[in-house]
Amino acid sequence: MTAMTDSLTPTDRSAVRRLADRGHYERAVVNGILDEAYVAHVGFVVEGQPRVLPMTYGRDGDSLYLHGAVGNAMLRASADAEVCLTVTLLDGLVLARSAFHHSMNYRSVVVLGVATRVDDAAAKRHAFDVIVDHVLPGRSQVARPSNDSELRKTLVLRLPIEEGSAKVRTGGPIDDEEDMDLPVWAGVIPLRLTPGPVIQDPTQTIPGLPPPVPRDLWTLTVD
Amino acid sequence: MTAMTDSLTPTDRSAVRRLADRGHYERAVVNGILDEAYVAHVGFVVEGQPRVLPMTYGRDGDSLYLHGAVGNAMLRASADAEVCLTVTLLDGLVLARSAFHHSMNYRSVVVLGVATRVDDAAAKRHAFDVIVDHVLPGRSQVARPSNDSELRKTLVLRLPIEEGSAKVRTGGPIDDEEDMDLPVWAGVIPLRLTPGPVIQDPTQTIPGLPPPVPRDLWTLTVD
Repeated sequence: MTAMTDSLTPTDRSAVRRLADRGHYERAVVNGILDEAYVAHVGFVVEGQPRVLPMTYGRDGDSLYLHGAVGNAMLRASADAEVCLTVTLLDGLVLARSAFHHSMNYRSVVVLGVATRVDDAAAKRHAFDVIVDHVLPGRSQVARPSNDSELRKTLVLRLPIEEGSAKVRTGGPIDDEEDMDLPVWAGVIPLRLTPGPVIQDPTQTIPGLPPPVPRDLWTLTVD
Repeated sequence: MTAMTDSLTPTDRSAVRRLADRGHYERAVVNGILDEAYVAHVGFVVEGQPRVLPMTYGRDGDSLYLHGAVGNAMLRASADAEVCLTVTLLDGLVLARSAFHHSMNYRSVVVLGVATRVDDAAAKRHAFDVIVDHVLPGRSQVARPSNDSELRKTLVLRLPIEEGSAKVRTGGPIDDEEDMDLPVWAGVIPLRLTPGPVIQDPTQTIPGLPPPVPRDLWTLTVD
């Protein structure tokens, strides 16, 4: 285990190769994307074949936590195995004058590594809090904490943020010089994940409970 | 190759096992999710290790098309190899009275199979159109079509939609009976990907070009 540094060191398998100028290794950029997204796509190898599942997660320092039911065969198999955790934020559709130069604005992170089981009860409770607070900051202080039975039913994995990279595209279309005067609208359709009005559980009859305020979305900018 | 049926047949590796009542195999549900999402997370196995990359794609009938630069080593390696393509639409954060029962509303699709190269020029052009029209319907009729050089620079893969499944969660939190009266706000924060005002390329000086209208988002409901 190396000391935490400001940047991840690119490796043969984590360095961004295609359009390498879009690659970022600073922890501030990597963590900003990880903290903003809600869903990670986690890749496992099962009998030599790839599997990708959407999962919730949480980050604490240089640790990512994943969790799931103890009966989840795929999660169980990925303990002490190589995983690839990928997170993508879609920021816009980039419409070029030519079909070829159409693109998307996005911020993505790939973290590679071995996921290890968290079995210590206190560490497991902490991971639970980190995952719940990732969904809604402070929620672990408000919701009824997990009891021993719930803890036993849950498998928690830790993936260190040591080997990985971010990739970011921003800005408008990049068309070829000879296409610039074509009469085709070019530009960007921005997209962002937007919270709607909260819907309270209709079975809840206690008056005056403060509704949740979702955390700020899409606050990081990278130029 | 079997004839296209209304539903995918669950296999050992594509059947939804965890919370199996959330599994769907009807093509209408699977295709609806695939048509709504913009980004797929595609899993490959590289030297025995998992890799997951975000990719754009398009669907035509029971075919999914992926594309990338010919120099993209991972894409090249995945031709004639097993891939796992996963798409996830996040519909909301589900806040329960207990930390344990927090969840998310989502619609996801997993497609497993062997991706094959599309090398025929006409088929490749068609795949290009499908991918561009996935971003914005009708765009392939408006943008300057790809020329032979651009076609040569691009690798196109086809993944058949034969083995796969959808998984859908909707509705509010499901708390334990003994937690129902806890003074903790419970319910759903709906989320949806929302287009912002379009941003025209400032280098574009042709007046009166009609701005694009993004396709309807979040139109599918599954109960």
